[in-house]
Amino acid sequence: MHIEKYQKAFINYLEDFTIDRHPNNLYEPINYILKLGGKRLRPILTLMTSDVFGVDYKIALDAALSIEVFHNFSLVHDDIMDDAPLRRGKTTVHEKWDLNTGILSGDAMLILAYQLFENYEPNTFKALAELFSKTALEVCEGQQYDIDFETRNDVSIEEYLKMIEYKTAVLVGAAMKMGAIIANASKEDQRGIYDFGRYLGIAFQIQDDYLDAFGNPETFGKQVGGDIIENKKTYLYLKAEESLDKDNKAMLHKWFQSQPENPQEKVNSVKQLFVETGAEQATKLAVEFYTNKAFSVLEILDLPDDKKQLLKQFGIGLMTRNT
Amino acid sequence: MHIEKYQKAFINYLEDFTIDRHPNNLYEPINYILKLGGKRLRPILTLMTSDVFGVDYKIALDAALSIEVFHNFSLVHDDIMDDAPLRRGKTTVHEKWDLNTGILSGDAMLILAYQLFENYEPNTFKALAELFSKTALEVCEGQQYDIDFETRNDVSIEEYLKMIEYKTAVLVGAAMKMGAIIANASKEDQRGIYDFGRYLGIAFQIQDDYLDAFGNPETFGKQVGGDIIENKKTYLYLKAEESLDKDNKAMLHKWFQSQPENPQEKVNSVKQLFVETGAEQATKLAVEFYTNKAFSVLEILDLPDDKKQLLKQFGIGLMTRNT
Repeated sequence: MHIEKYQKAFINYLEDFTIDRHPNNLYEPINYILKLGGKRLRPILTLMTSDVFGVDYKIALDAALSIEVFHNFSLVHDDIMDDAPLRRGKTTVHEKWDLNTGILSGDAMLILAYQLFENYEPNTFKALAELFSKTALEVCEGQQYDIDFETRNDVSIEEYLKMIEYKTAVLVGAAMKMGAIIANASKEDQRGIYDFGRYLGIAFQIQDDYLDAFGNPETFGKQVGGDIIENKKTYLYLKAEESLDKDNKAMLHKWFQSQPENPQEKVNSVKQLFVETGAEQATKLAVEFYTNKAFSVLEILDLPDDKKQLLKQFGIGLMTRNT
Repeated sequence: MHIEKYQKAFINYLEDFTIDRHPNNLYEPINYILKLGGKRLRPILTLMTSDVFGVDYKIALDAALSIEVFHNFSLVHDDIMDDAPLRRGKTTVHEKWDLNTGILSGDAMLILAYQLFENYEPNTFKALAELFSKTALEVCEGQQYDIDFETRNDVSIEEYLKMIEYKTAVLVGAAMKMGAIIANASKEDQRGIYDFGRYLGIAFQIQDDYLDAFGNPETFGKQVGGDIIENKKTYLYLKAEESLDKDNKAMLHKWFQSQPENPQEKVNSVKQLFVETGAEQATKLAVEFYTNKAFSVLEILDLPDDKKQLLKQFGIGLMTRNT
């Protein structure tokens, strides 16, 4: 997939980013969360896109870092809202320090993300900052929809798709569009590559739902069935609900109001419902549908075929993952 | 003081800013906090400065609004950190809704503040956003210092001054500098008006400490002695501590470890220590010192005398307030 060079360049750049400022209690948590690891998919996409559109990808390093800092900002604040003890297997910021540190360090990261555009000249700076603000606000909206959905029982598939689009996919689109902006790509290509990333992001998120229930326990990084155990209304759940008769729907709802100490029977029963209703199949098809939507956008881009192939390969790699 | 026209213009502009977007749970708290009232001093300063530097102040309305949105963002998040139930006599956002709403609505406000610069052309946009980021980060640092100081017993006057400079004063400076940027004032004038606002902000904050203990109960809006009751290490406290002998210092510390149900005796005794040590007098002098520092910056500005007088009158008005 040839993404190794972007990954290496980005990780080196991130390594050098350690913030050496006072007060310590504000900046130490930022350095901590940024060095926790992760796939770094979004910043890699920024670098790759700038390369594909014909500019030295090193010029895009600051924008790539901004995307990663923003992503980690959203993780720090989301972990507070979800009361999550762990992130990438390590203690979350608000657990390792405290609530106030989590809030304030997160705030500072959001500001730092904007500052990372300051090396670009005014026109590029403005284009990047505008895209960033629009995207960041949508991510907040997506997070709010996600919170709202927890206490609602009438969430439609359409609403769910909008939620994951805002919470996850638009940032993938923006990460790629930033690369295109820096490379001075045409407005059409900027819009196209944004849509490519956005559709890929939606596919990625639906696949996340799928793998959580039907991933291979031997290669899947987390506990299979985690979403079911936590009563999360995923794409699988909403699809199953759509086609269940009254009795089976009541059964699904009953399972999703329970939190058994030994959850294996619950996980098995719910998964069976997912399969029997065709929700499992429908979810697989939805991943394919959005992946193909992404690929079809590639056709209209003003790029040589080998570059399009590179982007497509990346998409295929993403969609055939196990974890 | 002729600030009424700026105030009116700003309040009208703010009135129209009601955000009509979904999800409701994200934007309703933002509309709520922005309409709670307040003196609107910072945005008024932005408008006044642009006017003084010779541009139609209406052009500065978006920047003024950005400053006010940011200020309210910091109030929403600070109120969470301070666990404050009330703000301007009304329920705080995290109390009226919940913690998650307070965090997420605050985040969205920080982003909205950047978006409010988007009507300015790229060079102005970049200058405003850079100043904003630098200032916003300093405000976070000031808040962190403030939190750190709560559990420290060795805070120096110098450190305290840096804390209030970051937490409060730089935003006043930035509010004015934004007006100067929009009016295309020279770099020297931009720096000068920033320092004017910053010194005024420091004076304002020290005066806040003073009035909290020695304000006239009949005109002071809040409970006189509130800081003493809450064991806040203010300028008065640090000055008193500096010059107390061992026994009296022990007495002050003892009072500041107590939370008596009827605090009148504590308030009276501490105030007496403030007077006897000369801390009360020193605090008054510090207000004067920073006010005069602000006024002396005016001399180097490339402005007609009547404009300088306008700025000075505003400063005098601010420093002769009772609330």
